Amino acid sequence: MTDSPEYLKKRAFFDSLLTIYGRKPVLEALEDQSLPVHKLHLADSNRKDQLISRIEQLAAERKIDVAHCDRKELSRISKNARQDQGVALDLALPHYGTAETFLEENSDTHFELLALDGITNPQNLGMIIRSACAGGIDGIILPRKGCAQIDPLVIKASVGTLFKTRILRCDQLAPVLEQFAKRGARVCALSSHAHETLQTIDDEKPNIFVLGNETHGVGPAVDKACTHRLRIPMQNGVESLNVAITAALISFRHQS
Amino acid sequence: MTDSPEYLKKRAFFDSLLTIYGRKPVLEALEDQSLPVHKLHLADSNRKDQLISRIEQLAAERKIDVAHCDRKELSRISKNARQDQGVALDLALPHYGTAETFLEENSDTHFELLALDGITNPQNLGMIIRSACAGGIDGIILPRKGCAQIDPLVIKASVGTLFKTRILRCDQLAPVLEQFAKRGARVCALSSHAHETLQTIDDEKPNIFVLGNETHGVGPAVDKACTHRLRIPMQNGVESLNVAITAALISFRHQS
Repeated sequence: MTDSPEYLKKRAFFDSLLTIYGRKPVLEALEDQSLPVHKLHLADSNRKDQLISRIEQLAAERKIDVAHCDRKELSRISKNARQDQGVALDLALPHYGTAETFLEENSDTHFELLALDGITNPQNLGMIIRSACAGGIDGIILPRKGCAQIDPLVIKASVGTLFKTRILRCDQLAPVLEQFAKRGARVCALSSHAHETLQTIDDEKPNIFVLGNETHGVGPAVDKACTHRLRIPMQNGVESLNVAITAALISFRHQS
Repeated sequence: MTDSPEYLKKRAFFDSLLTIYGRKPVLEALEDQSLPVHKLHLADSNRKDQLISRIEQLAAERKIDVAHCDRKELSRISKNARQDQGVALDLALPHYGTAETFLEENSDTHFELLALDGITNPQNLGMIIRSACAGGIDGIILPRKGCAQIDPLVIKASVGTLFKTRILRCDQLAPVLEQFAKRGARVCALSSHAHETLQTIDDEKPNIFVLGNETHGVGPAVDKACTHRLRIPMQNGVESLNVAITAALISFRHQS
């Protein structure tokens, strides 16, 4: 049995939803007219302050669907009761989807992706998104577990680029990378212990560059799914680079 | 009247001193046998804890000169009473000196330097040092005023590379850059508004790349001293990069 076109369309829409939270991030997203908004969620318990008033005013002006709910329901929506401040916003980002869908749609084209394995520092995640977006990377595979998730700190550190970057979600990274490799993509783990260097990689095949945890590097399961291991040559006996710096050197390698 | 060779040697020695402070940074520096230490300063008021005991033990083992002084004198030495924790250490770094001396010694050679104007975030300063060191930059000009200074946060963010990197101190950046330009160096301000791009710069002349404040960019006096203005081309309408990312793309431009 195959899924009906109606069902697939609906699923693609829900995959494109990104829920952000926190009064300031939600207000800034509403102020950006280029961002397609699906729905605003407000907790009944919210005390009205200037930010809430401005959020309600903008939602009215932009004719955005507003859902009022109790505090508990709101934390179910935001998935972060401690930081949501009673406010959540569903963005319908056309650039936001799943790694599987990306692979279906791009099996015949060249692409360059980053894939993140255990990047837990929100500052680093935001900087990676910013650099990859500026360098023209086609997307960032961000697993739902084991990585920092898109929260107000990440949005802030991405300096507005989160909403312009193709974020591809998946549950587990290793099986997704295996699928990409099966379709002919090079899956390259960045590691300071690798023999080959980043410069040895050409553009004849699609490339996925896998960046590992800030301290432990790429994990064993993900490493096993990689077809190549690459390092960035370093001078003065330096052993490693910040992961966001590595992401930038990859993303800009054709330009600088 | 010219300065005597004896005086010049003494001055060069004092220019090479870097005073660090804080119990953990001092302990880590003492543990690194490759770092030449000049003197350890301890406040009389220090309560002995494990870190202090270990610091004293290492100083004895390494036969390092220890000066005991009162709390007030110690904060005069550390220049940071709030963070020194009663401990300061003078390192005699051969790689540490003044921009003026560097220019005298390297007037006939090719070099690439970074110069920092108003980089106030210690995290960014540490990351710039780390990336520049790994990319093989010949030195970083760090003015004594208007920039973050070398403190425990910077040392931590530099991940050990601070002690391998040639840090060149100066009082004011603009007159120093003018001297470099007069001797034939290109002095290039990085700015997202520039017409020329980083790739247009060759190695026929020594190059100095000036990085400005995280929010305001290069200041007017320093900008006036620059002979070139350069940008890094960005995609997706991104307007700026983190300053440490910019430093990395410059430092690695011959390698990636």
